[in-house]
Amino acid sequence: ELADALIQSAGKRPLQGLCVMITAGPTREAIDPVRYLSNHSSGKMGYALAQAAVEAGAKVTLVSGPVSLDAPLGCERVLIQTAQQMHNAVTERIAKTDIFIGCAAVSDYRPSLCEEQKIKKTDKDKLTLTLVKNPDILGDVAALSHPPFTLGFAAETQQVKQYAQHKLVNKKLDMIAANDVSKQNIGFNSDMNALNVYWATGETSLPITDKLNLARQLLELVAAKYKEK
Amino acid sequence: ELADALIQSAGKRPLQGLCVMITAGPTREAIDPVRYLSNHSSGKMGYALAQAAVEAGAKVTLVSGPVSLDAPLGCERVLIQTAQQMHNAVTERIAKTDIFIGCAAVSDYRPSLCEEQKIKKTDKDKLTLTLVKNPDILGDVAALSHPPFTLGFAAETQQVKQYAQHKLVNKKLDMIAANDVSKQNIGFNSDMNALNVYWATGETSLPITDKLNLARQLLELVAAKYKEK
Repeated sequence: ELADALIQSAGKRPLQGLCVMITAGPTREAIDPVRYLSNHSSGKMGYALAQAAVEAGAKVTLVSGPVSLDAPLGCERVLIQTAQQMHNAVTERIAKTDIFIGCAAVSDYRPSLCEEQKIKKTDKDKLTLTLVKNPDILGDVAALSHPPFTLGFAAETQQVKQYAQHKLVNKKLDMIAANDVSKQNIGFNSDMNALNVYWATGETSLPITDKLNLARQLLELVAAKYKEK
Repeated sequence: ELADALIQSAGKRPLQGLCVMITAGPTREAIDPVRYLSNHSSGKMGYALAQAAVEAGAKVTLVSGPVSLDAPLGCERVLIQTAQQMHNAVTERIAKTDIFIGCAAVSDYRPSLCEEQKIKKTDKDKLTLTLVKNPDILGDVAALSHPPFTLGFAAETQQVKQYAQHKLVNKKLDMIAANDVSKQNIGFNSDMNALNVYWATGETSLPITDKLNLARQLLELVAAKYKEK
């Protein structure tokens, strides 16, 4: 009877005792003190994953870009603005991580230099902004000598499956969750989402539902694959 | 006695019966369906002005970029994303406007083209983004053949007075309110602000206070100068 209870309890809290790190939200890349480059990530999917991971018994670290969401109860939140700051925050804390979930929409590029003063509008009709590549947070985590179980996200507007599977292989991830952000009802800032999930030997679809429900389903899958690894 | 009461009432509702249009918040300029250029404007000063203008008896139209604020009670809000959309929204509604307040932080430039699909990260270490000039909303309003009383804002990080006075003359504004956004306590997203206000024949300082209080003081000044014009 005790064994049964423990099994049932473990089933309900599938990440009990594990350290889970989740990145969420957009990053902002400063052009000058006033202007920046960013993207439409609301952080809702990442925050739902953080809440679901706490519920599943994990010790959760949430590394978040600027969003208008409160941190889920019971998780440690680290707030950052830029991709470089997110890279640093993740790198400093990755050692004890069992499962890493890169849900943030990290800016691939940043302005090559951030002006210290607001750039004045000139008479020029055109302006060119030189961008340089940001560090690859997800790729660097997966390339560690002892990497955690690594789940990436692919937010695409076309050829979703192809891009997602390429990212899975190319970055040596354990799993990738893809969503089509061109669809209004499941796109950025929506409370609903649907995911196609791929790993080396399989795939599954998680149909449209609210993001917290979806997060719980995704974490059950992660927990199962983590234990197989 | 009646005359006294009317004078007192007019003093308390100094914009009674006037049509006031206020722009607020940032604009977002799309790079592709996921990424955009924007700025740190929270919209708080513009929304405070809209509320204060309603209190002062005006019919208020608030043309607002994406912010996380509710529209003040009693004003009509038009939500836009880009500078071009803001320009259109203002142009369509400007004819009956008595007082125009350009408080939005309009992006001076936008990407020369918006990609229909998310731009894929390439192997290239550098990327250049070509930007083209956006329409000058405030300048176009002030340049109308029968312009409303026009108040602009100058958010600067240095040489604040010089830039503000240049903008006042250059754009043929009736008044300009300047604030130094390099100061943390009165900068973007702060609930406090301080303004230096300039017009052709004078200037005044409105010391640091909450944005609603400041908005009320600024509108008293606007009402006085509007009546002198």
